[in-house]
Amino acid sequence: MSAGRVTAAEIAEQPTVLARVLDEGLPTIRAVAKVVVERAPRFVLFNARGTSDNASFYAKYLVEVLLGMPAGMTSPSTTTVYGVRPDLRDCLVVAVSQSGSSPDLVESTEVARECGALTLAVTNVPDSPLASVSELTLDVLAGPELAVPATKTYTAQLLTLWALVDAWRGGSAAEARGVPDLAAGVLARADEVARLAARYRFASELVTTGRGYSFPTAREAALKVMETSFLSAHAWSGADLLHGPLAMVDERIPVIALAAEGPGGAAIAPVLDRLRERGADLCVVGSVAAVAAAPYGFALPAGVADTVSPVLEIMPLQRLAWEIAVARGYDPDQPRGLAKVTETR
Amino acid sequence: MSAGRVTAAEIAEQPTVLARVLDEGLPTIRAVAKVVVERAPRFVLFNARGTSDNASFYAKYLVEVLLGMPAGMTSPSTTTVYGVRPDLRDCLVVAVSQSGSSPDLVESTEVARECGALTLAVTNVPDSPLASVSELTLDVLAGPELAVPATKTYTAQLLTLWALVDAWRGGSAAEARGVPDLAAGVLARADEVARLAARYRFASELVTTGRGYSFPTAREAALKVMETSFLSAHAWSGADLLHGPLAMVDERIPVIALAAEGPGGAAIAPVLDRLRERGADLCVVGSVAAVAAAPYGFALPAGVADTVSPVLEIMPLQRLAWEIAVARGYDPDQPRGLAKVTETR
Repeated sequence: MSAGRVTAAEIAEQPTVLARVLDEGLPTIRAVAKVVVERAPRFVLFNARGTSDNASFYAKYLVEVLLGMPAGMTSPSTTTVYGVRPDLRDCLVVAVSQSGSSPDLVESTEVARECGALTLAVTNVPDSPLASVSELTLDVLAGPELAVPATKTYTAQLLTLWALVDAWRGGSAAEARGVPDLAAGVLARADEVARLAARYRFASELVTTGRGYSFPTAREAALKVMETSFLSAHAWSGADLLHGPLAMVDERIPVIALAAEGPGGAAIAPVLDRLRERGADLCVVGSVAAVAAAPYGFALPAGVADTVSPVLEIMPLQRLAWEIAVARGYDPDQPRGLAKVTETR
Repeated sequence: MSAGRVTAAEIAEQPTVLARVLDEGLPTIRAVAKVVVERAPRFVLFNARGTSDNASFYAKYLVEVLLGMPAGMTSPSTTTVYGVRPDLRDCLVVAVSQSGSSPDLVESTEVARECGALTLAVTNVPDSPLASVSELTLDVLAGPELAVPATKTYTAQLLTLWALVDAWRGGSAAEARGVPDLAAGVLARADEVARLAARYRFASELVTTGRGYSFPTAREAALKVMETSFLSAHAWSGADLLHGPLAMVDERIPVIALAAEGPGGAAIAPVLDRLRERGADLCVVGSVAAVAAAPYGFALPAGVADTVSPVLEIMPLQRLAWEIAVARGYDPDQPRGLAKVTETR
């Protein structure tokens, strides 16, 4: 079997998975949102690691911006290492995990429920231990994911979490309606990504950056590249980049910037100016205008709501990580040193 | 003036600064804690960037573990980029900033106060814009910091935040009493750090890791190395490292692990085993036992409470970043591309 075949198939499956979330998933998502609205939490905590942590981080922005509600990311170790039993009344704890099996997530979610939180598992395995300890469960409906790097479960998590927040505020999921078809269009442009990837064949480092909803995309892109190509990839929020790490960036280090339509994309513009001043090699994944102003890039379809564009913008970067890995002779399906379920406590 | 002279002086000043926090700062810290207790917040949000974000992240663990209270890190962009006015009643927003001048922190803290939060500025400039928009202020008493890389303000922030949480739960700051003298002892061992630094003279990447209270130390150490030596340094929580980034680590990449006495240090042990299996070049900053089991290391003084050991454990790593930068011909006082006050919005 050729290297990366499983990952490539799972990346290509995403339009089907996203359509399934919208066609089959929405009724359950709305039912869960109804329970959440009735219980009226005042604070949302996300409990996740790895790729699921990046999906959660996107959802944290949605909760903060669309619901105006404070949100945070848990440190599972407070429960599993320090044995804390926090006061979580009025908190919604959303545990996000592809497998639903990481022992630390299961344990910390169980403790959160005992400590008064409303608990919701967002997982690809609805009969997983995580789902069984949670009061509510959302199946992200991605189908079995066999490759070690999570791809289709990531975008399924994003769309599920978006639809949950949208239903929570009384939306009808209108902004997401065209996303599966747009995803198919983005994935059909694999040749464009292959040409970009060729430029990174010999890079030893990579920096990704974005702001707002797209900062989690920058983090997930960096994680994919690290997992599959063992390239040192740093993700920085556009703002944090100026607080120190900018010193590290020079003409030797390629930068991939997310600049979708909307306020987050607009806010990254001054960061891109600073990067240009430092001679950074810049590639932009984003709006037609932002891509046109950069030496290299991948233009996203126009007219997509900025709240849902992270579902699309990660796709060329998943492919990019795959291309770099294969070009270097690695098998993206089975990165060295990793297992599909991570047994941390 | 020789390269790095200002940073070196500020690193060396830390025992004096820490003694000042305990001798002069405690009455105000206790008065602020009293107001916080009276107002009885149920959630704590930290608002910070860069080094101050690492100090805040440590304080997040303290709030979660010592107070059993949920806590989170804000994304300032939700206010400054997306214009959100969140419902922050019952929230304490702690804005941490050396200069108190970053426009996005000032604006987001001002909005937080308008939206019902109790606001507290923790800053080295008590007449700064950040302090003026906040209801409460704590001066970290580090004295003027002239070098671009924050060093003495970082440990002053850590100790101030620790003392605040300690006073909040009715403590008498007992665990910190010996810290200034112990800091002087740690800093006196500069020759040990110089020997370690020589090993990293030609490294192009570095990984740092820790768990619990020491994970923020890992992040701050990575940031210092990036700021001063332009070395690609990644900080991972011990648990997250196993969720993907481990694939990147091999015998070419030095790993610096934090392993102080206490549950966090114990929890990093299985991660160190996995790193050894992968042939990583391992240096441990931590307990005498953990250092003895590693090929390279720096032993911390015994018997320090794990809640306060982050104040000490960063010091050899500040010196390490300084040594690497100077060995490479850079000036740690003035890293290229950086300004002392970062003007992000």
